[in-house]
Amino acid sequence: MAAAQESSKVCEAFPMKSGDGPKSYAKNSTFQREAVDVAKQLIVNEIAEKLDIDVLLSSKSNTFHIADLGCSTGPNTFSAVEGILEAVQLKYQSQMMNSQVPEFQVFFNDHTTNDFNMLFKSLPQNRPYYAVGVPGSFYGRIFPNASIHVVHSSFSLHWLSRVPKQVVDRNSPAWNKGRIQYSNSTDEVVRAYEAQFAEDMECFLHARAQEIVHGGLMVIIIPGRPNGSSHSDSVANATLLLVGSCLMDMAKEGVLLEEKVDSFNLPMYYMSPQELEAAVEQNGFFSIERLEYLPRVPVDDTVSEQLASHLRAALEGLIKQQFGEEILDELFDRYRKKVEERLSILEIESGKPTHFLAALKRKAN
Amino acid sequence: MAAAQESSKVCEAFPMKSGDGPKSYAKNSTFQREAVDVAKQLIVNEIAEKLDIDVLLSSKSNTFHIADLGCSTGPNTFSAVEGILEAVQLKYQSQMMNSQVPEFQVFFNDHTTNDFNMLFKSLPQNRPYYAVGVPGSFYGRIFPNASIHVVHSSFSLHWLSRVPKQVVDRNSPAWNKGRIQYSNSTDEVVRAYEAQFAEDMECFLHARAQEIVHGGLMVIIIPGRPNGSSHSDSVANATLLLVGSCLMDMAKEGVLLEEKVDSFNLPMYYMSPQELEAAVEQNGFFSIERLEYLPRVPVDDTVSEQLASHLRAALEGLIKQQFGEEILDELFDRYRKKVEERLSILEIESGKPTHFLAALKRKAN
Repeated sequence: MAAAQESSKVCEAFPMKSGDGPKSYAKNSTFQREAVDVAKQLIVNEIAEKLDIDVLLSSKSNTFHIADLGCSTGPNTFSAVEGILEAVQLKYQSQMMNSQVPEFQVFFNDHTTNDFNMLFKSLPQNRPYYAVGVPGSFYGRIFPNASIHVVHSSFSLHWLSRVPKQVVDRNSPAWNKGRIQYSNSTDEVVRAYEAQFAEDMECFLHARAQEIVHGGLMVIIIPGRPNGSSHSDSVANATLLLVGSCLMDMAKEGVLLEEKVDSFNLPMYYMSPQELEAAVEQNGFFSIERLEYLPRVPVDDTVSEQLASHLRAALEGLIKQQFGEEILDELFDRYRKKVEERLSILEIESGKPTHFLAALKRKAN
Repeated sequence: MAAAQESSKVCEAFPMKSGDGPKSYAKNSTFQREAVDVAKQLIVNEIAEKLDIDVLLSSKSNTFHIADLGCSTGPNTFSAVEGILEAVQLKYQSQMMNSQVPEFQVFFNDHTTNDFNMLFKSLPQNRPYYAVGVPGSFYGRIFPNASIHVVHSSFSLHWLSRVPKQVVDRNSPAWNKGRIQYSNSTDEVVRAYEAQFAEDMECFLHARAQEIVHGGLMVIIIPGRPNGSSHSDSVANATLLLVGSCLMDMAKEGVLLEEKVDSFNLPMYYMSPQELEAAVEQNGFFSIERLEYLPRVPVDDTVSEQLASHLRAALEGLIKQQFGEEILDELFDRYRKKVEERLSILEIESGKPTHFLAALKRKAN
């Protein structure tokens, strides 16, 4: 259990914009929602094919435990959890085990600074499960041994546990001057981010290997980059690059201090499916049951507006902390305009995949 | 599981003053804290004597589940939970079962409107348990079947699920004009409160009987009245009576509308140990392992100040909702003065017990 405290020491928290106002995460997570909807059927299929009810029945309790890691404040988390729950119910029914359909307890996890009050208030009224909130970083232990049957996590694993230390150290060769993340940066910066990702993913898989029952499943939707594409080619990184370039423009115009940009970095990393495979291989406790790109969600001509709102909901907390609240409107207005000018650079209309789904099964070893 | 939703329909929520400011519940719960400290040793003894580890081991999982019902925002809940956890550990150790000491998962429950954000932020750093928040009224189902080993609840069961409907109905013989609770009121009003209490306690015990494992324990600290004393004799009721009389004074002086007092009632009921026994008997799923008065906490000459702060933290939300925020300072200032004038009436310095501890064991039937 010590691990739970360890992680609370090393991990920082990057909560989504709380509440339910017009700029909140709850109102600006439709990008993810669409991907969740696309993935929902895949998850249902996955559970139908891969969930081994016999293994779970032998795991003693008659409650089925589902965890959503990085749940934020909804509504995406409720939709995802419902999909999983229905798939499990179907599985029992298809095996003529109607009388044994378990009760469900759902563990909604996010950082301690997440707005759990809002999450709890927006829980669906007629939910067919017992709801529970779990504060803490998923890079450490958050659940007892072998206590979770299905783990779900959407749009969370691209958040690192922290910004790599070196990139904000003026005296390090990995100092990331004038940029806010690793794409288009020096090799040293890229390596620092890659190392942080590798360490975090090891912690993540290590903790889950202990928490998930043998035979249990973990289904994850990851915003990443395709195999074989460079960091700077990825749509997500190109998007963040534009935020950095807006900040540098504002620094040059004297709206904010350049040193503030130098010391600001985003704790995000867009992995490829191959990187995930390597981490799973090294961990050794999971088999990969599925690993596939999700189809791109079609975009319309409001995409620049949507992207700006979405990014603001996700990044507002971090940016406010570093630069002050007063720059937010201007920054995201500039950002929206830049996206409009460079739709082709962002390849927003191309078919290149950005998200992928992974289904991992806890080995019985 | 339907019950969980039912309860969310019928139950109202009466959150303690949130946050951690000078008037918050977190900073004004020392009255309870002292009683919790007094009760802590009793609880430790109780678990040492009555907890049957064999029964719990056969209950399959190697996680020990503790629930605190009506936890509010701390710090009392953390202290109570730690005491229980240590007692369980001692129990394992005393039976030379060191290698089998389980992991602990603690379920902190309160109304959905409780300040869980604050609770989560104030969780002890080096806690030896996995912490979880559970939103919802404990008068309905909040946990899966047979999933909790020890339930704790302090200073919560005197809150009813709602104000009895009749007492705010002008056309009912139980209309409670000019008073804010049942003591010193008409027989009809007293009966309405007694009926609400009986109904709530039935729901409470019914839900817990399903949720607690066979052989599991429930330890409760209840602010109540001694057996054989009338409602109006109880210190707690005398205390609330003074709040009502302050409100009526203010109505007579035109500070607030008398109709507002007429339509305002507190959803609190101070039961006697005998009433609890009768409810447990009727429910049938628990044996009473202990039922005893707690010693009165010695008071000093700051008692009127303390009482006023304490009551304000507990009642502020309800009073604000009915009368507006602007009356709060004046009301509790008047209240403090009234307490000072009537210390003897309140019997604050007498030895008459106000709180009692009950330990119930879930029968194996």
